[in-house]
Amino acid sequence: MSLREQMTELARAAKSASRELALLDASRKNDCLNAMADAIERNAGQLKSANAVDVEAARGSDMAPAMLDRLVLDDKRIAAMAKGLREVAELPDPVGRILHETTRPNGLKLKKVATPIGVIVIIFESRPNVTADAAGLCFKSGNATILRGGKEAMNSNRAIAEVMLSAATERFPGFPKGAIQVVPVTEREAIPELLGLTEYVDLCIPRGGEGLIKAVAECSRVPVIKHYKGVCHLFIDKGADMGMAEEIALNAKVQRPGVCNAIETLLVDRAVAGEFLPRIARRYAEHNVELRADAEALQILSGNYDRLKPAVEGDWFEEYLDLVLAVRVVDGVDAAIAHINQYGSAHSDGIVTGDEATADKFLAGVDSAAVYWNASTRFTDGGQFGMGAEIGISTDRIGARGPMGLEELTTYKWLCLGSGQLRS
Amino acid sequence: MSLREQMTELARAAKSASRELALLDASRKNDCLNAMADAIERNAGQLKSANAVDVEAARGSDMAPAMLDRLVLDDKRIAAMAKGLREVAELPDPVGRILHETTRPNGLKLKKVATPIGVIVIIFESRPNVTADAAGLCFKSGNATILRGGKEAMNSNRAIAEVMLSAATERFPGFPKGAIQVVPVTEREAIPELLGLTEYVDLCIPRGGEGLIKAVAECSRVPVIKHYKGVCHLFIDKGADMGMAEEIALNAKVQRPGVCNAIETLLVDRAVAGEFLPRIARRYAEHNVELRADAEALQILSGNYDRLKPAVEGDWFEEYLDLVLAVRVVDGVDAAIAHINQYGSAHSDGIVTGDEATADKFLAGVDSAAVYWNASTRFTDGGQFGMGAEIGISTDRIGARGPMGLEELTTYKWLCLGSGQLRS
Repeated sequence: MSLREQMTELARAAKSASRELALLDASRKNDCLNAMADAIERNAGQLKSANAVDVEAARGSDMAPAMLDRLVLDDKRIAAMAKGLREVAELPDPVGRILHETTRPNGLKLKKVATPIGVIVIIFESRPNVTADAAGLCFKSGNATILRGGKEAMNSNRAIAEVMLSAATERFPGFPKGAIQVVPVTEREAIPELLGLTEYVDLCIPRGGEGLIKAVAECSRVPVIKHYKGVCHLFIDKGADMGMAEEIALNAKVQRPGVCNAIETLLVDRAVAGEFLPRIARRYAEHNVELRADAEALQILSGNYDRLKPAVEGDWFEEYLDLVLAVRVVDGVDAAIAHINQYGSAHSDGIVTGDEATADKFLAGVDSAAVYWNASTRFTDGGQFGMGAEIGISTDRIGARGPMGLEELTTYKWLCLGSGQLRS
Repeated sequence: MSLREQMTELARAAKSASRELALLDASRKNDCLNAMADAIERNAGQLKSANAVDVEAARGSDMAPAMLDRLVLDDKRIAAMAKGLREVAELPDPVGRILHETTRPNGLKLKKVATPIGVIVIIFESRPNVTADAAGLCFKSGNATILRGGKEAMNSNRAIAEVMLSAATERFPGFPKGAIQVVPVTEREAIPELLGLTEYVDLCIPRGGEGLIKAVAECSRVPVIKHYKGVCHLFIDKGADMGMAEEIALNAKVQRPGVCNAIETLLVDRAVAGEFLPRIARRYAEHNVELRADAEALQILSGNYDRLKPAVEGDWFEEYLDLVLAVRVVDGVDAAIAHINQYGSAHSDGIVTGDEATADKFLAGVDSAAVYWNASTRFTDGGQFGMGAEIGISTDRIGARGPMGLEELTTYKWLCLGSGQLRS
């Protein structure tokens, strides 16, 4: 069977399953999710054995230690997968929500109702737990999932999917086989083949580094919701409470620097730069943050900060994901907005100010998925937004923007209920 | 300047304009729309002169008469463009709507607010009035538009855009120049160049024939919302009121056969085929509808219907856009659902039945943008749905589905209003 035939078979099975999944009621889906969670814990040994094969192979390759660590499935991670599935079972069913309802003058009743998207391809890198997390969210929202993890995690991913599938089938014999599938081949060419099947595949969500996401977006013929980089900013306005500004600037950078909603650039209003920069620098110094400062910030900080470098143009575009921060002095809120819209990735950006008019200007003018006033950008997250769980954070503008929870994994249809209405 | 440079300049100007458009309030936008409408009427002579150049050239080519007719701008069509813009001015502003609002346990207040999408490329065929209609809807929803009509309408399209732009600028000197632009070149290659500019272009909406839409979807690197064909169905269930079924089947086919929400296939429950088919055939005969019938329907109708042909497999996929209808006898609602999901285009499909359980099964099982119970499929339309005006009808599942009015031309962002919240 050619790669194209293999992918077509996979996608066709997913499409067929998606029609059945769309009709499952919440209690059936929740039963299956809880059964999957139990089975993941019960089969921890089997999962660890499959994972050991992957880890063994990875040790023999030149994989970086951090990546190797992400690949490992231990009891803690297995328990976390099970817990995640149980939490998804607890969340309200996003399917069937009535988004809008109206009766037209001719008596035709319209209901805009949330429905599953259909078949979702998830492409991700080395963490095998994504298999359970993503499949669980897609299943609860009535979608069939085709998972394509890194080839280094193939055995782990397949084992997880098999455990989930057989648990669901045991609980509910009518469980559609094509609901959760792992791409069974490692060839790179499988991705463009799969993402060319517009008849069967409805959406692709790539999760991972910039290279992966770009490659997927380049080759896909189906819609892609990208979960891209976060070049996030915090702007300290002259009207800010300096104490609050200091705490937010610290939290947004150092609380977890390796994630997409941590700030990468600090913008400081010229009017308060002389006061604020030395203050925040003392805090950053405690955390060994390297600062890449523009000429003006450099002048203020120079001599008083060890890890100080001049910023170059490329720094404004950089997602460090590390204890590194670009710093720029700007001329008020308008310059801050212009900087963010020019260099940012439209992910999460914030202002600290006590002045409402300035805040409103910032909130309206910054074109990002999440815009903050007097809070850390670190809250851009499905859990923090009350969605319960997220499949990622969209940096796209069509379909879903910002954190994607269960509701963001649905589309809608219009039900039109009449009593014989004709168009004249 | 190379084509790429030209397209980049166009797209960059649109992006810059979109930032300003996003901040305009409703009254400013409505003023501009009314000024555009007045100017279109005032400059009817100028528009007709520009159009005459296009029509002249088209007469010299081998353009089909129907297409030539669509190209012509007469006083009636000019008045309709102006009326359309005034109607859009009357519609509520879709920008700034609060879609969801919540306060998290930590006091962080979240507001999900509708915002413009940004830069929208509209690709369309010969009707020049689309220039005014599409640009008006995009402008009201705060988006910058780049219009690419057929090359045969280039002079007309540019003249319309120029009249709109200069009227808006006269009314409001700060009106951003890049808000409404017509691609100034006719090369085919302009489209892939433009749709490769992911940095500036946020969405493409192609409107036209299947060939155009496929070509756009193939080459685009930006999201595309397709307005594809409507292979729409009506299913007459055994529980239908035969009189109602007859009227709906007639209306859905003949009231305006050349549009996407007219039915192309009639499915009839076996239990009532012997009764219903001869009845509806008498009505279709009055309108000279050609029927392409499956073996069973053929047997029922044969000898009693002049324009009767056997259906072939290809007929089930066909969008006739004409007084032609495929007819199939099916075994109840399940078979009807299966037929529609297999052969349909997920546009608009309906059931006629008096049985609520059967209707519910159909409404849940048919995976189309609009699903009807006891009403003509012809209502799938922005105006009929109460959206006021539409840019088209999406057959896609990501972004917008079904009729796209002003609200469907927006995305959203999250405003996160705090008082110093930090992530722990």
